[in-house]
Amino acid sequence: MTPSAFTVLARDPCSDARAGLLKLEHAEVQTPVFMPVGTQASVKAMASEDVADLGYRLILANTYHLLLRPGAEVMEQLGGIRRFMGWDGAVLTDSGGFQVFSLAKLLEIREEGVLFASHLDGSRVMLTPELATDMQLALDSDVVMAFDECIRWPAEDRYVREATERSYRWTRRSHQRFLERRKNANQFFGIVQGGFSRELRRWSVESVVELGCDGNAVGGLSVGEPKELGFDTLSYTVPLLPADRPRYLMGVGTLQDIWRAVRLGVDMFDCVLPTRLARHAHVLSGGAHLNLKNARFRTDASPIDESCRCMTCQRHSRAYLHHLFRAGEVAALRLATRHNLWVYARFMEAVRLAIREGRLDALDPGRNGAPAVSGEAVAVR
Amino acid sequence: MTPSAFTVLARDPCSDARAGLLKLEHAEVQTPVFMPVGTQASVKAMASEDVADLGYRLILANTYHLLLRPGAEVMEQLGGIRRFMGWDGAVLTDSGGFQVFSLAKLLEIREEGVLFASHLDGSRVMLTPELATDMQLALDSDVVMAFDECIRWPAEDRYVREATERSYRWTRRSHQRFLERRKNANQFFGIVQGGFSRELRRWSVESVVELGCDGNAVGGLSVGEPKELGFDTLSYTVPLLPADRPRYLMGVGTLQDIWRAVRLGVDMFDCVLPTRLARHAHVLSGGAHLNLKNARFRTDASPIDESCRCMTCQRHSRAYLHHLFRAGEVAALRLATRHNLWVYARFMEAVRLAIREGRLDALDPGRNGAPAVSGEAVAVR
Repeated sequence: MTPSAFTVLARDPCSDARAGLLKLEHAEVQTPVFMPVGTQASVKAMASEDVADLGYRLILANTYHLLLRPGAEVMEQLGGIRRFMGWDGAVLTDSGGFQVFSLAKLLEIREEGVLFASHLDGSRVMLTPELATDMQLALDSDVVMAFDECIRWPAEDRYVREATERSYRWTRRSHQRFLERRKNANQFFGIVQGGFSRELRRWSVESVVELGCDGNAVGGLSVGEPKELGFDTLSYTVPLLPADRPRYLMGVGTLQDIWRAVRLGVDMFDCVLPTRLARHAHVLSGGAHLNLKNARFRTDASPIDESCRCMTCQRHSRAYLHHLFRAGEVAALRLATRHNLWVYARFMEAVRLAIREGRLDALDPGRNGAPAVSGEAVAVR
Repeated sequence: MTPSAFTVLARDPCSDARAGLLKLEHAEVQTPVFMPVGTQASVKAMASEDVADLGYRLILANTYHLLLRPGAEVMEQLGGIRRFMGWDGAVLTDSGGFQVFSLAKLLEIREEGVLFASHLDGSRVMLTPELATDMQLALDSDVVMAFDECIRWPAEDRYVREATERSYRWTRRSHQRFLERRKNANQFFGIVQGGFSRELRRWSVESVVELGCDGNAVGGLSVGEPKELGFDTLSYTVPLLPADRPRYLMGVGTLQDIWRAVRLGVDMFDCVLPTRLARHAHVLSGGAHLNLKNARFRTDASPIDESCRCMTCQRHSRAYLHHLFRAGEVAALRLATRHNLWVYARFMEAVRLAIREGRLDALDPGRNGAPAVSGEAVAVR
């Protein structure tokens, strides 16, 4: 790692929150940062230029999906994911571990890797730490993630221990492969597992940190556990991670979850929540979320949020969006997604500014008593 | 009609083509003009601001769809279709006649109007010339179209005669209602029917023209007939229409069909072709059309059309669009639609310029022997 790739610029006086600058090959990114998810080389319903227009400079793409379609060969031939999708910002790639354990039909976990049947055509694929790393390098990702094993909640203690240890060995192999084959200025992030055991989390952190990765991610949260159990685990895991490297909490979450994790010292986030909610007509408005399909919006001439300055709120009413969703018009998906991603982008800006100004506590999205987004929605990734 | 609402600015020396300016309440539109179709208050897959970005100032919306959903009451309450859909250009509204005869379950044609069952929920609706006009005024349309009877091809002579005569009586009633209830600066266009009979077309033109409408439309073409039969009919119908009013050929078509009709003296066009083709992954490229789902585009790094300056061609490759269509990503629909509508907009600009410069013949999209879009696609509306 270039020692200067991540710089902490400000610290919150009342919490462990910090604001920083992360220099990636294709963008400089201010942290804390939220990454929209572009699963299949597309932030769903949006063109790459739309995502850039919202101010994002870093998105997440999924190795699992892109490995199956269009495949490594096409990606390499076309010069990587950024050129492929016409995105001139930076890209962090998930290793595929999470998807193999959630989307694919899992056939066998071996020391070598994971054998699964593709969710597209049932074909058998063996995903190993080496292949996951090679694929991410074929994508020319700014940040290559370790291939890890996703441990669901609840799980038996013995399995959690075995999977945590295997995950570490996979992380080490991923890192080794990365060091052998890296090109340009790719970075590599390790992933900490350990389920909800303090002892295993500590062991996992210490082992992974020893590899000296460019950043460290906390995996295995938002996997079905009660929310407070997840935050409890996060609260003792984050302080163990090196303070001079970015910390990334994978797959989280609501604005309030992000705010809480930022206070614990997390710098990076990704989640399908804002885009997935939007496609189901759920949009963020003043700390709550509205279901635009609801009949009460039929003649509501106001925008989603009076105070919002996104292009959707500047030009379109709740009544129009209600109509588009009810009529099954595909334009609705983009208009709602654009709004939710705008809200996330502006919230992260506000978080960064609040840290610099020492008033992060005042920004709590849940301080009016209502969480920004309903609790059950947080488990989506 | 304000006598100055339509002005012919230039005539082609080699054909009956003319370039003009049509002043509508909400936009000044240069003719010949192509109107994208916004059936359900949405040009499919596009936001209103996207359509404006392509240079369009006039779109078509469908009374039939909007009458059923969201309905006249909502439309009136929200201030008409333009405010509803965040569109600051002008809107021409179809009367619903075509849709009643194509989409709905037709129950009975009476002198009063047409009884049909809604394609949405089966509910029975009686659409009359008066209701069609009232609905268009509730939409605050710039151009209100007469309610007419769409005569399919082939049809029996007796039916064609009856329907043509009834269509005229409906046009007269529509116009009467319009004169009684018009607000602002709405305009009214009559519609000529007559099937493929020279005698009936002449009778229909003479009757409709006598009403002194702001413009006149040729209906009942592109209804299943052989293409040359349609153009033959058009060629003897257009010269009968007043030269000082805009002439509108409804539901046509390919770029070459438009070019041919422009040469006959037609000023206005609408068609779902460019948007519908796009949603099926068919995009216009150098006089042909490509099916982006075709495997040969899997690694094709070139844009749809090297010479095209639309935002899709500026930023995205055939390979990426191929991937998005194959992966079922909804962003594909907008990217392809944006390209096709861009091509139509630029073609119409080129047509207008060519008329002024007396070189319209050189613009024939079919001059290389290949029609711009395959012939069978022209029948969609």
